[in-house]
Amino acid sequence: MADDKKLTTRAADFSAWYNEVIMRAELADYSPVRGCMVIRPNGYAIWEQMQRGLDGMFKEHGVQNAYFPLLIPQSFLSKEAEHVEGFAPELAVVTHGGGKELEEPLVIRPTSETIIYSMYAKWIQSYRDLPMLMNQWANVVRWEMRTRLFLRTAEFLWQEGHTAHVDEADAEAFTLTILATYRRFAEEYMAMPVITGRKTDAERFAGALRTYCIEALMQDNKALQAGTSHNLGQNFAKAFQVTFQSQGGSLDYVWNTSWGVSTRLVGALVMTHGDDNGIITPPRLAQYQVVIVPIYKSDEERATVLAAADLVHKELKSAGIRTHLDARDGMKPGAKYYEWEGRGVPLRLEIGPRDVAGGTVMLARRTGGKKQSFPTEGLARTLRLEMDSMQQELLDAARTRREQNSIRGITKASFLDFLERDGGFAYGGWCGDGKCEADIKEQTKATIRCLPDPEFQSEEKPTTCMWCGRLAITEAVWARAY
Amino acid sequence: MADDKKLTTRAADFSAWYNEVIMRAELADYSPVRGCMVIRPNGYAIWEQMQRGLDGMFKEHGVQNAYFPLLIPQSFLSKEAEHVEGFAPELAVVTHGGGKELEEPLVIRPTSETIIYSMYAKWIQSYRDLPMLMNQWANVVRWEMRTRLFLRTAEFLWQEGHTAHVDEADAEAFTLTILATYRRFAEEYMAMPVITGRKTDAERFAGALRTYCIEALMQDNKALQAGTSHNLGQNFAKAFQVTFQSQGGSLDYVWNTSWGVSTRLVGALVMTHGDDNGIITPPRLAQYQVVIVPIYKSDEERATVLAAADLVHKELKSAGIRTHLDARDGMKPGAKYYEWEGRGVPLRLEIGPRDVAGGTVMLARRTGGKKQSFPTEGLARTLRLEMDSMQQELLDAARTRREQNSIRGITKASFLDFLERDGGFAYGGWCGDGKCEADIKEQTKATIRCLPDPEFQSEEKPTTCMWCGRLAITEAVWARAY
Repeated sequence: MADDKKLTTRAADFSAWYNEVIMRAELADYSPVRGCMVIRPNGYAIWEQMQRGLDGMFKEHGVQNAYFPLLIPQSFLSKEAEHVEGFAPELAVVTHGGGKELEEPLVIRPTSETIIYSMYAKWIQSYRDLPMLMNQWANVVRWEMRTRLFLRTAEFLWQEGHTAHVDEADAEAFTLTILATYRRFAEEYMAMPVITGRKTDAERFAGALRTYCIEALMQDNKALQAGTSHNLGQNFAKAFQVTFQSQGGSLDYVWNTSWGVSTRLVGALVMTHGDDNGIITPPRLAQYQVVIVPIYKSDEERATVLAAADLVHKELKSAGIRTHLDARDGMKPGAKYYEWEGRGVPLRLEIGPRDVAGGTVMLARRTGGKKQSFPTEGLARTLRLEMDSMQQELLDAARTRREQNSIRGITKASFLDFLERDGGFAYGGWCGDGKCEADIKEQTKATIRCLPDPEFQSEEKPTTCMWCGRLAITEAVWARAY
Repeated sequence: MADDKKLTTRAADFSAWYNEVIMRAELADYSPVRGCMVIRPNGYAIWEQMQRGLDGMFKEHGVQNAYFPLLIPQSFLSKEAEHVEGFAPELAVVTHGGGKELEEPLVIRPTSETIIYSMYAKWIQSYRDLPMLMNQWANVVRWEMRTRLFLRTAEFLWQEGHTAHVDEADAEAFTLTILATYRRFAEEYMAMPVITGRKTDAERFAGALRTYCIEALMQDNKALQAGTSHNLGQNFAKAFQVTFQSQGGSLDYVWNTSWGVSTRLVGALVMTHGDDNGIITPPRLAQYQVVIVPIYKSDEERATVLAAADLVHKELKSAGIRTHLDARDGMKPGAKYYEWEGRGVPLRLEIGPRDVAGGTVMLARRTGGKKQSFPTEGLARTLRLEMDSMQQELLDAARTRREQNSIRGITKASFLDFLERDGGFAYGGWCGDGKCEADIKEQTKATIRCLPDPEFQSEEKPTTCMWCGRLAITEAVWARAY
């Protein structure tokens, strides 16, 4: 821990709180490189757990990992007109290599559609090669001027999936399979409720036919796009000549999808569950699910207590619970509590001489409530139940918060008033006109986060555009966003 | 599989064989980006298994993963004189970002000592913060002119560990701990015997005090440096002002180590175990340890056989054996055998109607020998024993091959003769003079791979330099190398 000063509260200054929480938990740090952050071990451990969870889910869908070059010839990006327009302003360009100026500049990948589909063109010949389902875990660079730890950095880590399919239906189905996977991950691992839906044309990925997303609401009532899944249509297939012999014998262009989530999710986790004492990590993503703090005064007590703590530690570890025994000498238990609290460890076990004598441990939950004594006998099972209920409790609390900060059936007046107060998700009718969308963004800084999927739509379908009053063609969800 | 043509044999053209084996097994492919390769799913799966094994070992030593920026200010590299001299010719330089020329060019990391120790300077205050033990899994770029799949590419994936210690003894001990870890990984996972030792000053890492390495001998009798571990002394600590308050109260510079292995290990695996039919993957690193091929003629047989194969598949998977059921229709069993053989799958199970009737499966080993029938009852245990013995057999065979291609007590004449014939590891005395070392390199293309650790030294200590005849200060191992 860097220091013991009280954190700025969320109510006082959410943005300052966010940075302080991250620094105190040592999740990340600023680097000497403009716009780039360092992910410190405590933050990287969360990302590793996220990777593990997501990677397993992708593989269940038949996706295989691969790795494609970091550097992309500049001319590749230009092959898809919308794509280059979208990414050109954000590129980092390598002009020199091995002491010489390059004949053609190379860009550091801002995303890898172009390089990957240029390879797919070589690998795909027949419908038998389809679907081709690949993912890579990689770093990308998008030159950003205003950066924030985890949320917006010039370089970030992510996974990007890239698939090719025989027809539009198969591509669309896979796009939605991944969207559902992202939602499941957000809810089941991150305990972060999301709404799913489609992006408007203005917010669509540069080069995609349709972009779908998961959107979460942070504690400051700003929305955060947590993952996107794109049906790319045949745009890249045509740009890179990715064709295949169909079962009927014709030579067709493949249909592509791409999809990604990034280290931004670590920031989302912090802003979804953190409190004024630090971060709260849902048990399924915690590096350490349980931390044991031994309590003693004399050397004799120390020996007894450490032996008992060690036994508990070993038992929990062998039961598959990620447990850490904090046996540091010369540090008071209170200081240890404070540190692990700041780092968001779900469960803390205190073991003192009296606990050892009674064959018990004292359990403190990161989410609050009274400490409780439990027998060491059957402890792994007890803690597993505790973690399951905490995981559920965090999800429920976040969902309740989101619903309390959502408004439906908005009019222009109620929308403006809503934003004036605390803001959140605002559901209302939209005429479908990009002009209305742009006006709203300019005047309120709120954007359409998505056109929500049926499950999230209001019972009463809006009939008019909340802004211009014309006929609504769809319901939309507005919010100010990260 | 790209095609069914016979591979070039190792004897005819080892280098052509190497490329063909990789292409046929679809481990990697050439990319449109100069010097960069694409790691295809079959190759990446091996790298993932390698990562898993190594990462677990690092964590046992208390190492934590983190992530540092890809881009490094050019001025950082210059802070350590030897370091910049070593890496300057290989740098890729970013001069433009976000549409503008940068004030200071950024280099893509060729290795991360400079950026990491600049952060350590901020994080380390006291001896209580030491040792600091971090690792990152990352991509690096070193501009290479002559590239080879996996062995030498402009971009490659690796892990780089970076640690800080209170004194030289602790840093040296950790350097050697990692060296031993690399050796253990090479032998226990890759079934690849290595010799360990120290590099000469000429082969030392740019900026290190001492570099240690593991060296393996490929089937063409060229050596391959498979991993290095450096004691960096206080060179980087002084360049980046990484100081700490010692227990005694003085302000001291830390002692650093760094160490890495890369995707080059995949190439080493291919060249250690591959045969004229394709690669051979040791069971511990195989994506699929067992592939099941069902054999049937009629639809009726198909139903029976697939049901039985499915049962075996589930049982083996639930026993933790990485198993794949190749149920592709319209492909003959022989074609499947050929494909999985090329991909190096250790064990193949064939299940036909007669096997189903008899409650047996037919086992074929990638390493050859007669097929053998085993009861499906207790199959998981049988296969586990088979895999253990294949793992050992591969290591033993590689060690025998290496020893058969090693020569000890060389003289200049016997050394030249040895290189003239097949080459391999040549052990002999060395005067310690860099001039001798350079002459040998120039005249024979052989380099000192290492000054071998005691375990690998010859029983009879050489007394004179095998090249110049002066007094030998040490034994050295020469070889032509990748």
